[in-house]
Amino acid sequence: MPQGETTVTPDDGLTTRQRRNRPVVAIHYGAGKGKSTAAFGLALRGWNQGWSIGVFQFVKSAKWKIGEQEALMALGEVHERTGRGGPVEWHKMGSGWSWSRKGGTEADHAADALEGWREIQRRLAAETHRMYVLDEFTYPIKWGWVDGEEVARTLAERRGNQHVIITGRDPHPALLEVADIATEMTKVKHPFDTGQKGQRGIEW
Amino acid sequence: MPQGETTVTPDDGLTTRQRRNRPVVAIHYGAGKGKSTAAFGLALRGWNQGWSIGVFQFVKSAKWKIGEQEALMALGEVHERTGRGGPVEWHKMGSGWSWSRKGGTEADHAADALEGWREIQRRLAAETHRMYVLDEFTYPIKWGWVDGEEVARTLAERRGNQHVIITGRDPHPALLEVADIATEMTKVKHPFDTGQKGQRGIEW
Repeated sequence: MPQGETTVTPDDGLTTRQRRNRPVVAIHYGAGKGKSTAAFGLALRGWNQGWSIGVFQFVKSAKWKIGEQEALMALGEVHERTGRGGPVEWHKMGSGWSWSRKGGTEADHAADALEGWREIQRRLAAETHRMYVLDEFTYPIKWGWVDGEEVARTLAERRGNQHVIITGRDPHPALLEVADIATEMTKVKHPFDTGQKGQRGIEW
Repeated sequence: MPQGETTVTPDDGLTTRQRRNRPVVAIHYGAGKGKSTAAFGLALRGWNQGWSIGVFQFVKSAKWKIGEQEALMALGEVHERTGRGGPVEWHKMGSGWSWSRKGGTEADHAADALEGWREIQRRLAAETHRMYVLDEFTYPIKWGWVDGEEVARTLAERRGNQHVIITGRDPHPALLEVADIATEMTKVKHPFDTGQKGQRGIEW
């Protein structure tokens, strides 16, 4: 079967053009590597389409992904300077969502995560971005900080043409239900298993 | 276990610093999405480290990944203009490796693939890049155009600190053997299954 061909023609009353412009929810989960890196790879495609990209990081410290952030922000600057590609925003929880309080202790993280989700809800309602990367967003749901059913409902009811990519282990079943694309990354072999340390450029 | 911690301390006589700078072969395989996108996500990290990135695409047409190419080349231009990040090269098989013949028919692809691999061997020997993305490289091996055992041997014997990321389905067993990181991307849910068309910004 040629690349990109479908095996089924759906009886949904949509034209091919409409079907080619349908907003997607994608979930990258599992114990393997590549969940977030693949999400940021999708952001490259979106950037090249001229889309507004919004990245929202829900877990702290070792998982900051400085490399991807620097690179995507550099692409956002290319857009500002030359008009190529699209604008990029990058927001981090805890060390301070830029629209929320700065600092805060471990005990504030649940409130920060919920406020982050509320902001994403506002942006989805306003159709602020064309592509959202909700990085490690499965965890605040898993920990009960954000309601998974509510997230799924918001995603299912979002308007316009907004793509949403969610990464992290153990996604809430309602997220998998609402997802158009679900990919499980399975760890087959990993250097941490044999005692290798995480390293620059590979792990972050 | 904190992020990035190991469960084993290896008896390999290396210091932590040495273990943090060990060259890696990573394979992204399986029927799921995200194999190549995760590889390009790693390239973002490498770029931010100031590394020379070489991308080599082994399969044509629908798989060109224009979005990633435009974005990574834009990052290469940021490097040239400002010194931030690292340089980026992007080479495609068939439509003409830039060091090989242009054009060519279907029958030339095997020779093109082999010549592409020979060029990669030369670059590995010369330590030209710090990170290589060999995109869809499992296929010319699977099709017998390039010898998988030879590839594994070349990778095992490469010098210096060169990371190599290989993507594609059905990797040769010798590649999995030589890999430090192997991740299988499993398709759990995909819109093509329900007749949705591939779309800009998501599929390419």
